[in-house]
Amino acid sequence: MPNPDPDCIFCKIVAGQIPAHKILEDEHTLAFLDVNPLAHAHTLVIPKQHYVTIDQMPPDEFTALTASVHKTALAILKATPTTEYNILQNNGPTAGQAVFHVHFHIIPRSPNDNLGYRWNPTPLNHD
Amino acid sequence: MPNPDPDCIFCKIVAGQIPAHKILEDEHTLAFLDVNPLAHAHTLVIPKQHYVTIDQMPPDEFTALTASVHKTALAILKATPTTEYNILQNNGPTAGQAVFHVHFHIIPRSPNDNLGYRWNPTPLNHD
Repeated sequence: MPNPDPDCIFCKIVAGQIPAHKILEDEHTLAFLDVNPLAHAHTLVIPKQHYVTIDQMPPDEFTALTASVHKTALAILKATPTTEYNILQNNGPTAGQAVFHVHFHIIPRSPNDNLGYRWNPTPLNHD
Repeated sequence: MPNPDPDCIFCKIVAGQIPAHKILEDEHTLAFLDVNPLAHAHTLVIPKQHYVTIDQMPPDEFTALTASVHKTALAILKATPTTEYNILQNNGPTAGQAVFHVHFHIIPRSPNDNLGYRWNPTPLNHD
């Protein structure tokens, strides 16, 4: 495993030191079920290399990661009743990041799931 | 513009029929400020081609789009005080999609922004 952080739970999953329900794995990325899911088949997709935020990632590693996000989303649509879903990726604790190893959430949605966002949009100030 | 939907506001932005505050543009993608921003520099990144959800996109067009998301995020970090941010992409009305042309949100966050998510996670059932 490249440059693991010894205190990082996701690096330990990559190294096989902590078990996970794997959905997809390739040379650079790993997808596995979230252990605290918001929905059935809520899946995380991570780079095997330890990065805290996506702005730390080289462009080619970022697109390798998002290619896996896309493949994993297609696999979830094929394997489950899911037709609607969110892709969410948080950078920094203020943004809700709880594990400090880059991860994309794929969150299947259903009409009565009571998830959602407290959006409070305001019109763009054109001045 | 490839395969525009005549009723799609984002296709009209791509075609220049509706103005937008453009942040980045290349052959396949366009980034511009959200007109109903959740935060300063809240930016949308779209494919120029009309797709409703990411599962409709060919893999190479999806990674071209995410490469632009990455570039745009780096540009926002460079040009603004932002250090923390969410990447969010909604597929389907139940998932909060309001414009039915694929778009990634880049949402800068700050400690007192009162944004956030109504998460209600439950432990994974291992049965």
